Amino acid sequence: MRITIIGMGLIGASLGMALRSAEAVPAIVGGTVHITGYDTSRDVLRVARERLAIDTPAKSLADAVAQADLVIIATPVLAARDILAQLAPVLPQGVVVTDVASTKAQICAWAADLLPDHVAFVGGHPMAGREQSGPAAADATLFQQAIYCLTPAVATPPYALERVETLVTMVGAKPYFIDADEHDGYVAGISHLPFLLSAALVEITGSSAGWKEMSHLAASGYRDMSRLAAGDVVMHRDICLTNRPALIRWINDMVALLLEVRTSLEADEDDQEERDKIDALFQHAKAVRDDWMNQMNQRQGQRPGEDEAISPPVERPRLFGFRMPGERK
Amino acid sequence: MRITIIGMGLIGASLGMALRSAEAVPAIVGGTVHITGYDTSRDVLRVARERLAIDTPAKSLADAVAQADLVIIATPVLAARDILAQLAPVLPQGVVVTDVASTKAQICAWAADLLPDHVAFVGGHPMAGREQSGPAAADATLFQQAIYCLTPAVATPPYALERVETLVTMVGAKPYFIDADEHDGYVAGISHLPFLLSAALVEITGSSAGWKEMSHLAASGYRDMSRLAAGDVVMHRDICLTNRPALIRWINDMVALLLEVRTSLEADEDDQEERDKIDALFQHAKAVRDDWMNQMNQRQGQRPGEDEAISPPVERPRLFGFRMPGERK
Repeated sequence: MRITIIGMGLIGASLGMALRSAEAVPAIVGGTVHITGYDTSRDVLRVARERLAIDTPAKSLADAVAQADLVIIATPVLAARDILAQLAPVLPQGVVVTDVASTKAQICAWAADLLPDHVAFVGGHPMAGREQSGPAAADATLFQQAIYCLTPAVATPPYALERVETLVTMVGAKPYFIDADEHDGYVAGISHLPFLLSAALVEITGSSAGWKEMSHLAASGYRDMSRLAAGDVVMHRDICLTNRPALIRWINDMVALLLEVRTSLEADEDDQEERDKIDALFQHAKAVRDDWMNQMNQRQGQRPGEDEAISPPVERPRLFGFRMPGERK
Repeated sequence: MRITIIGMGLIGASLGMALRSAEAVPAIVGGTVHITGYDTSRDVLRVARERLAIDTPAKSLADAVAQADLVIIATPVLAARDILAQLAPVLPQGVVVTDVASTKAQICAWAADLLPDHVAFVGGHPMAGREQSGPAAADATLFQQAIYCLTPAVATPPYALERVETLVTMVGAKPYFIDADEHDGYVAGISHLPFLLSAALVEITGSSAGWKEMSHLAASGYRDMSRLAAGDVVMHRDICLTNRPALIRWINDMVALLLEVRTSLEADEDDQEERDKIDALFQHAKAVRDDWMNQMNQRQGQRPGEDEAISPPVERPRLFGFRMPGERK
């Protein structure tokens, strides 16, 4: 199987490294995997090659995909739109195209608009990452045990799904089939709102008059809450711009809750009802979070503990009324 | 030196363990440290003893402090008020009292009101913690290299400062003298707002209709952003209730910024100005965060890297117009 990865950032290079070091190669692959890589930056492409993320660097998009069985677009999502447009006239017959962006409805719509009928597109989103970006930060084990969302359309042919599912399995991840719009709404809550909050926290503290002194006092809590703010700027911006309605809903929920807390804090000191509301918020949030951690750890058969990797279980909801390839009865 | 720790939670028990395992015992201590522990819960006190956090468990507050040179109140801050009131009539002459709460102005005012003149109070706040609570989670190394805020009043006698500073040094932390109100404003931004955001994030996602599905997709970003929500509920509530004005200011800043982002997201897709605002937010936040991490790591002489412990430098601002004990010229 010939796989082309476009975009040699953290995710693209990590996918290449994971594929090239995969121990089990499914029969569908036909013995070997050959990885071609492309990036608009020569330096980035060179680093990806040095890190053994690719077999062959390509000099152009057209060269990169000429013989591909599977093309993975691993760029920020707005750039992916341009790439789909550029690829459309040069993609070979029967190739399968996928992507790794954090928003899925928009890119699936673009793919349906832009790609020719002889090319199948399956949206993909590995639920893994780190705040560092670029191929230097790539890691062959990044996707081990991770959930890997796939958002096929009703018309997606089974061979295309099978090919993308093979990719997911080879990098050690677990396929999770989900509707693109549903994906975007959920991920806005557990991924996009979190990085927005992280950036907003750093922005308001870092812009305050006392930042110099505050920065000395900030410790592990601030470090964790600000970690996502160190992520790739273009990726974050593109995610926001391609997931507007879902993110706006979550922003509204967050603002409403913060204003409720403010009301409680503005109440008289002996207003027990408002005090109890603050108490109830922390009680409930702790219960939900503890429950989530326990579930994550139990499903992994791990001891409870923050230091364990979190690996959500494989779940394969039956969507769109047909059976997914490889799905057990 | 006889030290009494009231409250055998995470911080109280960790202080006891750190003191009992301290390698360098300053001359002021007089050779040995004896730790007496008290907690309203017998079980908690038993666990603290089993973990070697204390030498002697006390049966009452009065017994606990009868022979103390230094009393450390390590309870949530609202409980500390009651303890100050109960201790006032039984504290021996010349004893020094300190605390470990995350808000300092309120408890310093209570101490000034409640404690007799023959007792000195120095507010304290070690900038260290973890989301687990209770003595079972205690750790003798919790304070290693941590900043330990001390908020003496103008009238605080030098011997009292010296005694508390000895405690800080023995547990491996670095004393940082700061005005109580200033402390509360800063810490509201880098600690209290973060845990409120963490709890609010868990609250709105965990209460949403899609939580069951979302919880499977949540990965390391959500784990980090929700970690603080797992912290001690009473501690969080008490911090909010004793730091209202500062926290309200930070909530207002956060809400204002989130509403700006919403406005940008509601703009037309081709509104370049609003797009640029989103870009600028992520750019600036990343720059501030990267800079902070670099400073933290450099000051430690560590290689840059997320996995290193963060240990802000010792800074000893000269406050209140007098020289701090032990301060170098």
